[in-house]
Amino acid sequence: MKALGIGLIGTGYMGKCHALAWNAVAPVFGDVPRPRLAGLAEASQDLAERKARELGFERATGDWRTLLDDPGIDVVSIATPNAFHPEMAIAALEAGKHVWCEKPMAVTLEDAERMLAAARASGKVAALGYNYIQNPVVRLVRRILDEGRIGAVNHVRLEMDEDFMADPDAFFSWKSEASSGHGALDDFGVHPLSLLRVLVGGVRRVCGHMAKPYADRPLQGGGRRAVETHDIASVLMELENGASGVLALNRSAWGRKGRIFVQIFGSEGAVVYDQERMNELQLYTADDARERQGFRTILAGPQHPPYDRFVPAPGHGLGFNDLKVIECRELIRRIAGEAAHLIEFEDGIRIERTVDAIARSAREGRWIDVAADARREAA
Amino acid sequence: MKALGIGLIGTGYMGKCHALAWNAVAPVFGDVPRPRLAGLAEASQDLAERKARELGFERATGDWRTLLDDPGIDVVSIATPNAFHPEMAIAALEAGKHVWCEKPMAVTLEDAERMLAAARASGKVAALGYNYIQNPVVRLVRRILDEGRIGAVNHVRLEMDEDFMADPDAFFSWKSEASSGHGALDDFGVHPLSLLRVLVGGVRRVCGHMAKPYADRPLQGGGRRAVETHDIASVLMELENGASGVLALNRSAWGRKGRIFVQIFGSEGAVVYDQERMNELQLYTADDARERQGFRTILAGPQHPPYDRFVPAPGHGLGFNDLKVIECRELIRRIAGEAAHLIEFEDGIRIERTVDAIARSAREGRWIDVAADARREAA
Amino acid sequence: MKALGIGLIGTGYMGKCHALAWNAVAPVFGDVPRPRLAGLAEASQDLAERKARELGFERATGDWRTLLDDPGIDVVSIATPNAFHPEMAIAALEAGKHVWCEKPMAVTLEDAERMLAAARASGKVAALGYNYIQNPVVRLVRRILDEGRIGAVNHVRLEMDEDFMADPDAFFSWKSEASSGHGALDDFGVHPLSLLRVLVGGVRRVCGHMAKPYADRPLQGGGRRAVETHDIASVLMELENGASGVLALNRSAWGRKGRIFVQIFGSEGAVVYDQERMNELQLYTADDARERQGFRTILAGPQHPPYDRFVPAPGHGLGFNDLKVIECRELIRRIAGEAAHLIEFEDGIRIERTVDAIARSAREGRWIDVAADARREAA
Amino acid sequence: MKALGIGLIGTGYMGKCHALAWNAVAPVFGDVPRPRLAGLAEASQDLAERKARELGFERATGDWRTLLDDPGIDVVSIATPNAFHPEMAIAALEAGKHVWCEKPMAVTLEDAERMLAAARASGKVAALGYNYIQNPVVRLVRRILDEGRIGAVNHVRLEMDEDFMADPDAFFSWKSEASSGHGALDDFGVHPLSLLRVLVGGVRRVCGHMAKPYADRPLQGGGRRAVETHDIASVLMELENGASGVLALNRSAWGRKGRIFVQIFGSEGAVVYDQERMNELQLYTADDARERQGFRTILAGPQHPPYDRFVPAPGHGLGFNDLKVIECRELIRRIAGEAAHLIEFEDGIRIERTVDAIARSAREGRWIDVAADARREAA
Repeated sequence: MKALGIGLIGTGYMGKCHALAWNAVAPVFGDVPRPRLAGLAEASQDLAERKARELGFERATGDWRTLLDDPGIDVVSIATPNAFHPEMAIAALEAGKHVWCEKPMAVTLEDAERMLAAARASGKVAALGYNYIQNPVVRLVRRILDEGRIGAVNHVRLEMDEDFMADPDAFFSWKSEASSGHGALDDFGVHPLSLLRVLVGGVRRVCGHMAKPYADRPLQGGGRRAVETHDIASVLMELENGASGVLALNRSAWGRKGRIFVQIFGSEGAVVYDQERMNELQLYTADDARERQGFRTILAGPQHPPYDRFVPAPGHGLGFNDLKVIECRELIRRIAGEAAHLIEFEDGIRIERTVDAIARSAREGRWIDVAADARREAA
Repeated sequence: MKALGIGLIGTGYMGKCHALAWNAVAPVFGDVPRPRLAGLAEASQDLAERKARELGFERATGDWRTLLDDPGIDVVSIATPNAFHPEMAIAALEAGKHVWCEKPMAVTLEDAERMLAAARASGKVAALGYNYIQNPVVRLVRRILDEGRIGAVNHVRLEMDEDFMADPDAFFSWKSEASSGHGALDDFGVHPLSLLRVLVGGVRRVCGHMAKPYADRPLQGGGRRAVETHDIASVLMELENGASGVLALNRSAWGRKGRIFVQIFGSEGAVVYDQERMNELQLYTADDARERQGFRTILAGPQHPPYDRFVPAPGHGLGFNDLKVIECRELIRRIAGEAAHLIEFEDGIRIERTVDAIARSAREGRWIDVAADARREAA
Repeated sequence: MKALGIGLIGTGYMGKCHALAWNAVAPVFGDVPRPRLAGLAEASQDLAERKARELGFERATGDWRTLLDDPGIDVVSIATPNAFHPEMAIAALEAGKHVWCEKPMAVTLEDAERMLAAARASGKVAALGYNYIQNPVVRLVRRILDEGRIGAVNHVRLEMDEDFMADPDAFFSWKSEASSGHGALDDFGVHPLSLLRVLVGGVRRVCGHMAKPYADRPLQGGGRRAVETHDIASVLMELENGASGVLALNRSAWGRKGRIFVQIFGSEGAVVYDQERMNELQLYTADDARERQGFRTILAGPQHPPYDRFVPAPGHGLGFNDLKVIECRELIRRIAGEAAHLIEFEDGIRIERTVDAIARSAREGRWIDVAADARREAA
Repeated sequence: MKALGIGLIGTGYMGKCHALAWNAVAPVFGDVPRPRLAGLAEASQDLAERKARELGFERATGDWRTLLDDPGIDVVSIATPNAFHPEMAIAALEAGKHVWCEKPMAVTLEDAERMLAAARASGKVAALGYNYIQNPVVRLVRRILDEGRIGAVNHVRLEMDEDFMADPDAFFSWKSEASSGHGALDDFGVHPLSLLRVLVGGVRRVCGHMAKPYADRPLQGGGRRAVETHDIASVLMELENGASGVLALNRSAWGRKGRIFVQIFGSEGAVVYDQERMNELQLYTADDARERQGFRTILAGPQHPPYDRFVPAPGHGLGFNDLKVIECRELIRRIAGEAAHLIEFEDGIRIERTVDAIARSAREGRWIDVAADARREAA
């Protein structure tokens, strides 16, 4: 495996997270070559230089396109606002770079489809930042399901709730503008959908509803402006495997900070996962003796790879950033041609199509067949 | 307040619960006269006599109509299978008895409407067995909402899950027959709907989905029979107060035993309640200092009336049967003409109409306006 | 089994609890004759009459000795302040009554020993009100231990915490007077010790420490008075089975309402129980597959007798008062000569001796051999 | 602030943790210069070279003393078995290096005192690896206490439990040899003692008890060998601030993986912390309205510095390794002469003296005055 040269665009929330992962992946895993942090792009040269210094990148630029011309850069991390993803990802792929792009792919499904087309045309790896699927505990869920320990899955409930939009007195921001997307649905609903995809599979039909907890918000300069996005989304689903499902999203849910609550029911048991307690899994299996049945709380430990690469002792806990380190290694392995656990554009597009179908369903007040898109595409 | 004479029809699960409540209500509360347990009806004279002895009733009968002729009986507790409710409740009301009928009112909305008509015509108290609303913790939720501690409610999620239908190898039973009703929806979905009604209010529109985790079940004599009811129901809701909501029901949810999970989000906080931990309430208020905000777990105690009538010390815990004792006292007070916290037929019919609308919505795959029924009725 | 005549002395906290149990035991269990609530004694005739009416007792008296002369009374429930227990229990036993006395037996060990002597001399049943041992969940612990599911017990931790003495500004009360006993140790420390006794066995050696969180308290009339009792007690223990143990008690523990936290560790697993969630048990067994090991939360249900006599459905929850109903039936069975699960004076005295040894140990600042008392007694 | 040159001795459990922290500290915090990972020592040259490659160190050596001769090394991380700490730390200090040594300081108090003397003589920074005190949640506890939000602390309970010694069939290992130390007490009891020190303060008197859950263990070659260490330790404490305390340790506690359970009670509230849920804090304050009082679960977030340096969103969770990164930055700041939150040898020696006093107390079966050592030393 050769050492990869890395370019990073964006150093905010997830950009820093990428940078930390590129720094940590080699010492944590010990089985991949240390990446060369070649270049970093930010909105201005000054900011880029400061961030490059902090985050350990060799070169800095105020123009992200510069990174694409750098032959020392193999992979481009894209961690900019969603609206920039299409242009940057397509340009990077066309420049022959592998791409590691934050979720969601784009603001519109059309853009996402263009990104997929570019990825296919390039032959490069185009991966998405769906870090929650990397949690060793989520991987354990996958094994539990594969081994049939809860039987055939027949019902799924997914919730994602945070409260960053909960304050009715907070000023109107870009998150309330229609140009930012639908609201909770694409802002973070793609996360539970990514878990659904890797754990249970695809979505066949949806019926969505979106709501605005606050009709308008104060403007900083005085006055109020109508809110254009929906902080709440609720969805009924029929899954491709025949199971029924519910997806509920709320980014104005006071008290919820990073809750992704997943309940999967099967014919022989159930698993329950809460991202706010990301080092725990609840498992119920119907084959225990009746008087001793109950959900068991499994604490993450070295028996749940790759937890062991972080800490050799169980119950000591991984953090949010550690998931990105795991994802980073999967990406490196994927680029090296090895099997990897990643959501790439090919799979990510299905999440985008589901999001799009939900939004249309909510708008039109009726059930929509998600698969229709796929069939249309196949035709 | 005069001592009431009580007749009880049915001594199964909820019938015994009624009997225990009639026994306990006077010593627990000390402010209502001890009821006279006048008569008990069961399917046979023998069974009735045995149960009357056990449960402390004076007379026993194998024919429930006998109770209606007894001038010493003021109230009839009806705790028989749902299909019997209409005939019994209507007959009892027509005989001039007050009625305390277990939920749901009936298997069909038509029957429920007939029951309401009989109640109106009788001028008697016709109450329903919605015991969960009596929990001191639920009453605390009501106060918290009334006092505006979580602001204006804008989103509600309700779940009710048990696992008594979860075993795919269990024999086909009457619960899988269409004649028993829709399935989870009316079997127990009315419970969370009762909480919704007393806590947040009415339902304006619904979009439901119902699913069968198991297509068929084994017959005791061999062979298999197709399941006709839906053990899973999921519903999108728009509430009369403008809030959005989700209702999710599953009676084949392995590991869930008596879960009614209620999440109510408002503009200034949130409350979360889980019936499996019925002595606890989770409350989050946005007005705490930022670094110390969190859901607080309030343990039921004497500061949450009428907990104090059961135990003077906090955190010692009420049980499921205690809720019926509280309901029983509310009924006695209501009959005496005092203010009471009860769901009577007038209110119960709205729950039934919501259930009916959900079932139709699921059947027809579209949103249904619940209020339409009410308007139709008003017309 | 003949119907017992009941006399009740005291109608406060636990007196009412006894009364509710005597009212409920027959309808709940259906296998014991309904007791005759013959007489009730309170501090005054007036109060007695009011309480008799409320609680369903036939006769009332302001003089508890009257009950002892009543040939219709077979059992006397004693639920008065601890200081009254010896005189009342001994008199009742001498009058040929069975006794059901609240814990602890007495304020001094000498008194408790006299009570035991009276019980032995009487040949009557002399039972104590250790209701927590009746919890179906605690009985499940007993079965789990008996079946060896957590192997040989080698370490036990017991905590009991409430906050009724936590407010430093609360006025000086009798609970702070030396005449009331040691403080947390005998006030409620006997409860975890009762669990220890029925679950693991006797205590061999102890080393105790007692502390006063507040040196003095305000007097209602002004001024302050030094606190004489210890709201906090902490104890190291060596158990008769060779296990080590810790007992920690605090009745000034803000936030704790009815916490009795029991952790039992064995060579093959562990169980954890919290009285504040009295319908749950945590069980860990080392024989699960390694990647799926965890504490499972077992919810009380009908598979844990006698839960089924209260509710036929699991997870619906018993309450504090229900435990007394179970205890009541055990007492009735014991009086009828059947096997029963009860702590009688013979066993209760060991708890009292342990308490006494802990108090002396704390006073003298050294380890004390509890068994010495027993040996002394045997000599 | 100048960039520090780092030498690392040992690359096992905590050695890797140090290496990850040295890699991450600059990009995470952005306010310290990126350290130069100059040299790494392991037991053999081969191993050292492999680890240097993985962990990003420039040079590798099979002889740790080589690092001390390297003028490019400013700080030496010591993460070897405890028995090696004294020789290495003293040599490093004598060579003019700053030292970052894992806990505990040494196997014997005498060695620890020698280490302290060397630190004093050197004038260099000598810090210990007490990472749990760095948790933003623990720092929040410190603020809550400082601000008097739970009033005056009067009782503390500390538990630390893991199950790595719980299997009675596991072979005899060095952890059961007396040369490894006392057992649970020094193996990990120093962790809760470090929390006690930074949160509440010093320990005045102790009474300890140590126990062996298993008398002997199988040898790999056949036969059995008596266990010499104590996997269980329980301690009564009187603290310097007048509070009483309990410390309970068990490294054979089935089901516990990384539990450090801290309960701190004060005159106006309580805080409860569990390391297995290291991103949560339970806080109870008595000044809430009575009917809404309860422990609130505070989720770690950016309002709890330096959480914000890892993730800008609350509730997303830090992991065990992140605590070391925080500690690392504190060390860098300390070396630069800035205020830092660290346990250095001066403070660490008090933990060691407490451990020593507890061990003697357990051996002699009596209370021991910890402060005596300090006074003796002062004399």
